[in-house]
Formats: sequence, C-alpha cells, structure tokens
Amino acid sequence: MTPQSKNRTASEHVSELTTNRLSIYVRCLGQLAASGVRTVSSHAIAAQFHLNAAQIRKDLAWFGEFGVRGVGYSVDGLAAHLRKVLGLGDPIRVAVIGAGNLGQALADYPGFPRDGFVPVALFDRAAAKVGTESRGGVPIFDIRRLPTVVRKEGIRIAMIAVPANVAQQVVNVAVAAGLRAILNFAPGTVTVPPGIKLKNVDLTVFLDGLAYYLANTANGKTK
Amino acid sequence: MTPQSKNRTASEHVSELTTNRLSIYVRCLGQLAASGVRTVSSHAIAAQFHLNAAQIRKDLAWFGEFGVRGVGYSVDGLAAHLRKVLGLGDPIRVAVIGAGNLGQALADYPGFPRDGFVPVALFDRAAAKVGTESRGGVPIFDIRRLPTVVRKEGIRIAMIAVPANVAQQVVNVAVAAGLRAILNFAPGTVTVPPGIKLKNVDLTVFLDGLAYYLANTANGKTK
Repeated sequence: MTPQSKNRTASEHVSELTTNRLSIYVRCLGQLAASGVRTVSSHAIAAQFHLNAAQIRKDLAWFGEFGVRGVGYSVDGLAAHLRKVLGLGDPIRVAVIGAGNLGQALADYPGFPRDGFVPVALFDRAAAKVGTESRGGVPIFDIRRLPTVVRKEGIRIAMIAVPANVAQQVVNVAVAAGLRAILNFAPGTVTVPPGIKLKNVDLTVFLDGLAYYLANTANGKTK
Repeated sequence: MTPQSKNRTASEHVSELTTNRLSIYVRCLGQLAASGVRTVSSHAIAAQFHLNAAQIRKDLAWFGEFGVRGVGYSVDGLAAHLRKVLGLGDPIRVAVIGAGNLGQALADYPGFPRDGFVPVALFDRAAAKVGTESRGGVPIFDIRRLPTVVRKEGIRIAMIAVPANVAQQVVNVAVAAGLRAILNFAPGTVTVPPGIKLKNVDLTVFLDGLAYYLANTANGKTK
C-alpha cells in the first residue's frame, strides 16, 4: 500500500483518499505562498493546518518529492508538482445545470475560479430564466443548448443542482453532451455509464451524520 | 465487524459509512412511500436505487430489522425504525452562518426541511444584511446575536458558509454558543474541541478529484 518510489506517474492508480489529501496540501501551500513563505517542513505544514506530518512525508515521497533535511520543501515547487499530479494545469471550465438558488450560488462561488475551476454557463429549462444571468454574471442557457455550449466553451465538468426527480434525466443529458465528469448535488441515487466519473454530494446525508452524533451523545449538554 | 444481533442500541458505535448508508435507505423508503409502496424486499430496494441487496440486509439485521420471506420489509415501519436509529425524531433546527450567496442558498434549500432539518436563522457581520431576510424568508441576524438566538430558537446544528480566512473564528463562536454539531463549507482546515462533531464539505476538493480523473483517462475522448 505504501511503496517507496521516486517516479510515480500520474496515470497509476491513486486512491480518492490520497487525491483528497493532495488537494488539501495544494490549498495549504497556496496559503503559505500568499503569506510569503518560501520553504516549509512537513512538521510546519502539519502544525499550521492540523494535519499529520508522517502522512504528508509518505504522500509526497510516493509522488517523488523529498524534503531537504533542515530546509524542507520548496513551497512553489511542491505546489506546482502536486497540481501537475492532480491534473490541475489550465483552468477547467464548468457548467452548472439547474439555475435555482443553489445552482446560481455554485456558479458564483468565488472559491472555484480561485482554485482553477471556472463556471462559464448555467443551464435551466425555465423560459423565464433563460437569457438572464446570475448575480455574478454567469449566463443562463436553455438546457437544450447544452451540447452546443459544452463544445463551444470547452466545458469539461458538470455540476448538477436540480430536484431529485429530474436528476437522472439531467445526468443523461450531460453524458450525451460529452461530459465525462459530474458533481451531483441532487439527493437520491443516479447512475452513469462506464467511463464517466460521478461524485455525489448529498447535503442532507451530511446532516444526518450530525443528527446521529447529537442523538447519541449527551443531549442535554448546553455548555 | 459484522456480528449478528437483534438488539443493537443506537448508542453503540456505528461507523460514519454505516450511518451514511442508513441515511440513504431512509431517503429511498421515503420515495417508495410517496409512490404508495407498502412493503418492499431488499432486492427491490437494491434494484430501484442501484444499491447492494446483501449490504442492505446486513445493515438492517444489525439494527434488529429482519425482512419477512416472501413479503419483505414494511416501508413505513422500516423508515420509522431507521429514523429513530439516526436520531431523526423531531425536526432539528439549524443556523447558517454567512449570508453570502452560498449561505442564503443553503438556508433556502428545500431538501433540508423535507428531511427534517429546518434552517431558522442566518447570521452575518455585514450591517447591510442584518435585519433583512433570504429569498425564502429566513431572517438574517448579527453574528454577535448567535448565542441568544441559538438558545431562543433551540438551534442544534450550525452550517458555516464564510470565507476560509474567518472560518476558524466563526467555528469558535458557534462552539462558544453551545452548538455541538457543525457542517463547514469553508475551504481549508479548522479544528474543534473534543465533544464537538465537525464535518467538512470542501467543494473544491470534490472538483479536484474529477480533474484528476479527467487528467488520467483518455482526454481527447468526446464521445
């Protein structure tokens, strides 16, 4: 599970947990760079961002990055390397399907373009919304124009923010439009054909986990 | 890992993965009930919602629910039992801290009250927002009033939708107000004291996983 190798290529299988950790390291390094930090040790990263230093060293060694004793890692160099491993080169253009409150908030979310994901189009079927734009200026297109706009704008990821009862239908439309990576916020279960990557973010499932915690720990505690 | 027992109590340790699955079963049963289905087999649930029948039977048996051969499970009875296990009794009142686009979309998200989580208050520090309300009618309070409103409204969960650089500070305020369950949408890492349950939903990390997939599979493929 944790071989030591200097030359992992990005095409080898890496678990989702690992890519999630690398993704977090990239964010931390970005914060350090913004603060003017040039080199950093695994211990300093771990302490500042509440992470595990041994895990950081193991993850980085796996991808061929070894810190220099007494110096640590180059902040910019390490960030660039990890971004390459994660496939975060040029900004990736994103479509948001469903121009309700959540869809529009996602299209305007400042954290996405800052991290290399640029929502360039919203899609909806409501005639009253088509032709308008979000507060942040993302244009809203008729869902029937998805294939054309995806091709023309070079969109590669779809975020789905529609009600559960139309989610599967909308996912099918996205796949038919040539999109191979989908982040689905609609509750319930949808399926995709082989070769398509689907991630589900069911917001209520997160809350259920918290409710379970509240129900099974000291309830009366109000501090 | 998978003992057979009829009488698990909700207070025993159950993994987050298991509570996530139970949470999904509750949603599926809700959809079945809405369609007028009265009894259902694990196979039918699995087929309709793209789940694993053996896993369903194992999870339900763990919590003392056994289907009747040839009849299956009572849809309403099973849903009620699982809701009880998950601590989903009365609706749980929720505060949303951060009244930006994302915070307001979360406060107005129709999926939450439908599943027993009721956002009753938004909080912000911007004077221009305080005293107004979201499109859906959730009032926006000054963040300094959090402890009072939490107590008065019986709020038990906080959702955090603020920029990363103030997230830790806001989490501290929520904990000081007596909240013990926090769903954090701010990117980066925040910490909580023992006894507080924190879940992080870093939206960009989900997209990084998709970018990694796109970078490491046939890129030119456009179907």
